[in-house]
Amino acid sequence: MVIFGASGDLAWRKLVPALFNLYDSGHLPDQFFILGVSRTNWDDREFRGQMQDAVTRHCDTQSGKCSDFLSHLYYHRLEYDQPEDYKALATLLKHLGQKTGAKDNLLFNLALPPSLPPVVSRKLAQAGLSQPGPNHQGWIRVVVEKPFGHDLESSRYLNQTMAQAFSEDQIFRVDHYLAKETVQNIIMFRFANAIFEPIWNRNFVDKVVIIASEKLGVGHRAGYYEGTGVLRDMFQNHMLQLLSLTAMEPPSMWAADRVRDEKTKVFRSLRPFTSQAVDQHLLLGQYGAGKEIKGYRQESGVAQTSLTPTFAMLKVYVDNWRWQGVPFYLVSGKRMAQKVTRMVIFFRQVPHSMFRQVLGQDITQNRLFLNIHPEEAISLSFQTKGPGPVLCLRTVRMVFDYAVDPSGLSLGAYEKALLDCMQGEQMLFWRQDGVELCWSFLEPVLNRCESCGDRASRLHTYTPGSWGPEEVKTILPDWPEPAL
Amino acid sequence: MVIFGASGDLAWRKLVPALFNLYDSGHLPDQFFILGVSRTNWDDREFRGQMQDAVTRHCDTQSGKCSDFLSHLYYHRLEYDQPEDYKALATLLKHLGQKTGAKDNLLFNLALPPSLPPVVSRKLAQAGLSQPGPNHQGWIRVVVEKPFGHDLESSRYLNQTMAQAFSEDQIFRVDHYLAKETVQNIIMFRFANAIFEPIWNRNFVDKVVIIASEKLGVGHRAGYYEGTGVLRDMFQNHMLQLLSLTAMEPPSMWAADRVRDEKTKVFRSLRPFTSQAVDQHLLLGQYGAGKEIKGYRQESGVAQTSLTPTFAMLKVYVDNWRWQGVPFYLVSGKRMAQKVTRMVIFFRQVPHSMFRQVLGQDITQNRLFLNIHPEEAISLSFQTKGPGPVLCLRTVRMVFDYAVDPSGLSLGAYEKALLDCMQGEQMLFWRQDGVELCWSFLEPVLNRCESCGDRASRLHTYTPGSWGPEEVKTILPDWPEPAL
Repeated sequence: MVIFGASGDLAWRKLVPALFNLYDSGHLPDQFFILGVSRTNWDDREFRGQMQDAVTRHCDTQSGKCSDFLSHLYYHRLEYDQPEDYKALATLLKHLGQKTGAKDNLLFNLALPPSLPPVVSRKLAQAGLSQPGPNHQGWIRVVVEKPFGHDLESSRYLNQTMAQAFSEDQIFRVDHYLAKETVQNIIMFRFANAIFEPIWNRNFVDKVVIIASEKLGVGHRAGYYEGTGVLRDMFQNHMLQLLSLTAMEPPSMWAADRVRDEKTKVFRSLRPFTSQAVDQHLLLGQYGAGKEIKGYRQESGVAQTSLTPTFAMLKVYVDNWRWQGVPFYLVSGKRMAQKVTRMVIFFRQVPHSMFRQVLGQDITQNRLFLNIHPEEAISLSFQTKGPGPVLCLRTVRMVFDYAVDPSGLSLGAYEKALLDCMQGEQMLFWRQDGVELCWSFLEPVLNRCESCGDRASRLHTYTPGSWGPEEVKTILPDWPEPAL
Repeated sequence: MVIFGASGDLAWRKLVPALFNLYDSGHLPDQFFILGVSRTNWDDREFRGQMQDAVTRHCDTQSGKCSDFLSHLYYHRLEYDQPEDYKALATLLKHLGQKTGAKDNLLFNLALPPSLPPVVSRKLAQAGLSQPGPNHQGWIRVVVEKPFGHDLESSRYLNQTMAQAFSEDQIFRVDHYLAKETVQNIIMFRFANAIFEPIWNRNFVDKVVIIASEKLGVGHRAGYYEGTGVLRDMFQNHMLQLLSLTAMEPPSMWAADRVRDEKTKVFRSLRPFTSQAVDQHLLLGQYGAGKEIKGYRQESGVAQTSLTPTFAMLKVYVDNWRWQGVPFYLVSGKRMAQKVTRMVIFFRQVPHSMFRQVLGQDITQNRLFLNIHPEEAISLSFQTKGPGPVLCLRTVRMVFDYAVDPSGLSLGAYEKALLDCMQGEQMLFWRQDGVELCWSFLEPVLNRCESCGDRASRLHTYTPGSWGPEEVKTILPDWPEPAL
């Protein structure tokens, strides 16, 4: 594996710790090497020292395998746009392969700022490193993290440059919200159980709410976030992926492209926004200051007059046979009451209440909660009789929690993603068409929000630790009550 | 309230303790009396002494209300067929009503052997006690316990004699398996939740299994049981009631007769048995001797060559639009592995498994468990992803348990039944047409089992503590596995 951006934050916090965990649990092959690549002027020893620090801080090293793991690490200094440095890289890779006895499989992990992946891809191709040569026995794959561009045009450019170097099945566009077992489990839950699919449609579903909220503020990412905002940061990728998982048709088989075909069909079915629809279906917010908590505009790196939204609710429709008329509410924000990633299916009311004379009230809807984070749990709310002699209904929940499951630990998101890359399993990764469809769906929304004169009036301030601006109720009147 | 059979076991073990509990929890009116009636030569004092014993043995008397409760008890000796004794009873009732200030509401509780309710009903009518007279302000009701006859003819006789004395809305035929909140809850579960009804039919249900098993043997009821057997003791009443709860159509409203109409429709739809069908759809068993456990034939009061069945599995079909082709398996027995009353809905397999290449196995069916006893819980089994990198499915359960519900204790079966009688709520009680329909459905089965020459060969011995005879698998091959 070659990590581009090896001296960066992502490698230190996530990638190398995840690689150690995979090594520790026996998921890496016997012969392998990890080559760190970046502009920093390190040698192997310095790189190993930094990564030792990363592993001891982020992992459980009780097994004592840490120093053994570090002996597989190497470093190579490289200017990202210098062809000579890539030639040297090619030579080094050949040398390391012979020295360590590793197979010819090559995984390039581009842990780089958004502008660099196109550059690196082109240079890798020029150095003959992007495709297996005649003497090359193994595969070559490349991992790229979001953001996949900043808008439709830049994402197309990224896809095109990468496509000149790599074929689509070599490219792993990772989204760590999605490279999770719980997400895989949602597909299994929907299609390995016969009882949900018959009611998973407009005849029985009233609405769907998808939440991804954070308690924290923008933190050290302010510089990046200021130019991005919640729609680009969360909606183009995570939120629309979660929507596609909920809304997609049953794939014919468990295969990456069959599943991604179905997701793409959902993206194609999203009802496009007219200017008017944007006004009615979108609400933006920015967190203000709270007790001992900085408002967004007080964060370092943020302009005092910033109009970057940190909260959004978007109401979308999926225009197909299954979902016609069912609203999907996508909600995401920072500095909210709770950290939670969840999809909630609200089923319709009973068509006829046989209890109307006795109870004289509406019967609460059934709700199915698919919790992804921090709980990984599925629960179903339903009505039962309240105990005692008086006839009354009460809402209770059946719960299944992965955490209390005795049969073993699941993999972390980074571990899972790396393992899938090594195994060539692309199901949980973005495909080029999906990325572009999501951008083109969001572009009218972004244009409307960012360019028009009423940008400031559109942005509602909300209290940190709340569930967003009060005005959200104009879009979803009972928010957040029944979704929690 | 007047308890006929006041010196009997039922009054001592169940009725009076339940009345005390209702008194203790404030569910009885301020002015009331309980008059014990039987042939035993007691006076008020002796009756109160016996009932004090009953209450202290069976109830929590911490509140100190026991002696207060006992002061409401009175006794009247009576020969069940002597008209003069009923005249004396009428006079006494008038006297007690005036003395205690109780309202004119009269509840006759016939805790009597099966031959006596017709006699007592007739005598009550002759003494003018079965219908409110011109000066009578309140209601008169009568409670009768199962068995409701021994076969169709005797049940018709019972119903007819009682109907000459009482109108149908005065008669409360109580079945303590059913006068439970959990049973009421099943109706609410089915019809206050919108998500189950759409899949509650032949398109999505594969089969239904209804179990009522006991760990104990026949015990002190041997004398009665020997002439009855499991089909009369359990199937004519409990098992067919549980079936009707599962199979009935949604009633138009929550009212006793609307619910009982729907149950009656189910009984009318039961596919009648031909002789041949009996052979294929019924399996009978009798428990043999086990380690330190007497076999049925060794129980005192049982003939050494007894052919009375203590276990039965009956496969029935409900011939209507909703259930055509779906088998219902009714299973009941004594000396089985577990004490449990449960209905299990087995849903069909997924129509198409997208996992077939990866898993190469059938996907386990979804099952819904409606547990009535001893747990009062609802659970749903479904498939999720097994944790870890290998793709596999695992069956897990979502559970809702009434016992862990914090919002209050539910009523015991006898308390619930008595309270419903006082409130005139007949929903959980049998109606005359249901009783007779169930007898007429079972009569061909009983005739076939009891009269033909191969009665002995039809009876399979089973080990105490098992799930019945091995031969059950000829009717339901995977019994008891997935139902538990």
